[in-house]
Amino acid sequence: MKALAFDESSPRVVERPEPEPLADHALVRVALAGVCNTDLEIARGYLGFRGVLGHEFVGRVEQGPAEWLGRRVVGEINFACRACPTCAENLPRHCPRRTVMGIVGADGAFAELVRVPVANLHAVPDALSDDAAVFCEPLAAAFEIVEQVAVEPGARCTVLGDGKLGLLAAQVLALAGARVLAVGRHPAKLAILRARGIEAVHERDWSGERAPLVVEATGSARGFERAVAATLPRGTLVLKSTLAERPAVDLAPLVIDEISVVGSRCGPFPPALHALEAGAVDVLPLVCDRVPLAAADDALRRAAQPGALKVLVEP
Amino acid sequence: MKALAFDESSPRVVERPEPEPLADHALVRVALAGVCNTDLEIARGYLGFRGVLGHEFVGRVEQGPAEWLGRRVVGEINFACRACPTCAENLPRHCPRRTVMGIVGADGAFAELVRVPVANLHAVPDALSDDAAVFCEPLAAAFEIVEQVAVEPGARCTVLGDGKLGLLAAQVLALAGARVLAVGRHPAKLAILRARGIEAVHERDWSGERAPLVVEATGSARGFERAVAATLPRGTLVLKSTLAERPAVDLAPLVIDEISVVGSRCGPFPPALHALEAGAVDVLPLVCDRVPLAAADDALRRAAQPGALKVLVEP
Repeated sequence: MKALAFDESSPRVVERPEPEPLADHALVRVALAGVCNTDLEIARGYLGFRGVLGHEFVGRVEQGPAEWLGRRVVGEINFACRACPTCAENLPRHCPRRTVMGIVGADGAFAELVRVPVANLHAVPDALSDDAAVFCEPLAAAFEIVEQVAVEPGARCTVLGDGKLGLLAAQVLALAGARVLAVGRHPAKLAILRARGIEAVHERDWSGERAPLVVEATGSARGFERAVAATLPRGTLVLKSTLAERPAVDLAPLVIDEISVVGSRCGPFPPALHALEAGAVDVLPLVCDRVPLAAADDALRRAAQPGALKVLVEP
Repeated sequence: MKALAFDESSPRVVERPEPEPLADHALVRVALAGVCNTDLEIARGYLGFRGVLGHEFVGRVEQGPAEWLGRRVVGEINFACRACPTCAENLPRHCPRRTVMGIVGADGAFAELVRVPVANLHAVPDALSDDAAVFCEPLAAAFEIVEQVAVEPGARCTVLGDGKLGLLAAQVLALAGARVLAVGRHPAKLAILRARGIEAVHERDWSGERAPLVVEATGSARGFERAVAATLPRGTLVLKSTLAERPAVDLAPLVIDEISVVGSRCGPFPPALHALEAGAVDVLPLVCDRVPLAAADDALRRAAQPGALKVLVEP
């Protein structure tokens, strides 16, 4: 089968054997996959991953337990051991023995077929298009914020960064009742939020007023210190960007202002699927490009362009 | 009067006019003052402070409202405006217009007299010696941890750093019911904790096992990344060190392990005074040196020696 693999210096489309069937796993024929910034960071060396890239997908179960055969699915990306103390604490996404699809030790979804533990599958409602369902994984990561942080109705929240995750986080926080101000640098992206009634300003027009809740989703090494400065004393800063870099950081303001920094990664799929089905979150305007799997290396290049949003890969 | 001032390149004992009386303020004749690592950081340029250093003290009110005259007191160091929205939210320690004794815009306690807002004073119980009472401010900073973070009885907690604040934090956390492991590099300091039944190991003998609650009190630029690595996924890392440096930091583990970093600064005086009065915390073994005010510049040098603990300044 065709797959976009990162084996050496840069990601390339290669011919790979199809994944072997495995107990308690399904082989999913990928219908659509999405490019995430993490894919770009991996291509820069983040986490030292080698293998097939891609962890946002929707597809149809081709092999696996009878009850799943033929069903349209999305899949959680952390493949937990389901046996260790962390899994016993119901934290499979933090299983220390986990592999992670397309990120740590498990082949990903920029391929014709991807192998996923059955425990990670979620059925996609019929009413949901593939184009919408492929956003389930990043939207779940946005829902993780409201799982971790209590959002009081009307509470001010600043979302820094108008990339894919920033746009999803701003919508989820607004849905949770926060008074969201999104700060970015791309008028077209900010317009997506304004169309949903969310206040969104270009960073050059932003007052810089500090908020009790701030989400850092700039994907930039300089973003952290700016996000700290945007957080009120005793406020909470949710950190979403993962970077290969090690920026120099002034940590003293965290102590002086007693700010809480909450690292936030993957989230729960059910509320994301529910929000997509209810049309409570706009994701389709985020699609900026479609690329066939045979040219998936080009998909990464396009996703790395300034101003790009979600690039979809079509096997 | 004599005072230890940081006006130019290095702290020096100088002659200064006595502070002017001011409404709602007391002039306190300093009986004893303690050297904090923050004093040493200020002498390295931290926060750009100029003026009389020192913010840990016990003394006797010499001028001020009648009800305070002659009383032995300690004093909170954040001088709030008591009029702004932050103060109205009962967060005077975070008042954006505050000055901070010996740290930001207000002269400190390495002097014969120090001026303190009456609202910041706390009477010292007669049973408490000056030597113990002078620890109220740093002990309050240790109590701040248990104000910010819920400590479940028996919860494992690792305290990194066996400096002054580390030793106080370990004791306060043990008092709050945590199962504390203190990690340091000074056998004599670790012995102070062991004498109170707190487990304490040299860092070279430490397993590195991660804990759900970690306190970073190493005062070292490399301490942050090590503390992150010592925190379990979804755990809490309390950050106590304030540094003039901007270390290069890998922020990705915070996101991947969804760790919460809680900046922690000054704390409440009443529980600290209460614990000192009850003998629930050992502070006297932390005193390593006493220096007359006339040689207070030497006090800073002694406090900067490897292995030093609390150096007291005696006016």
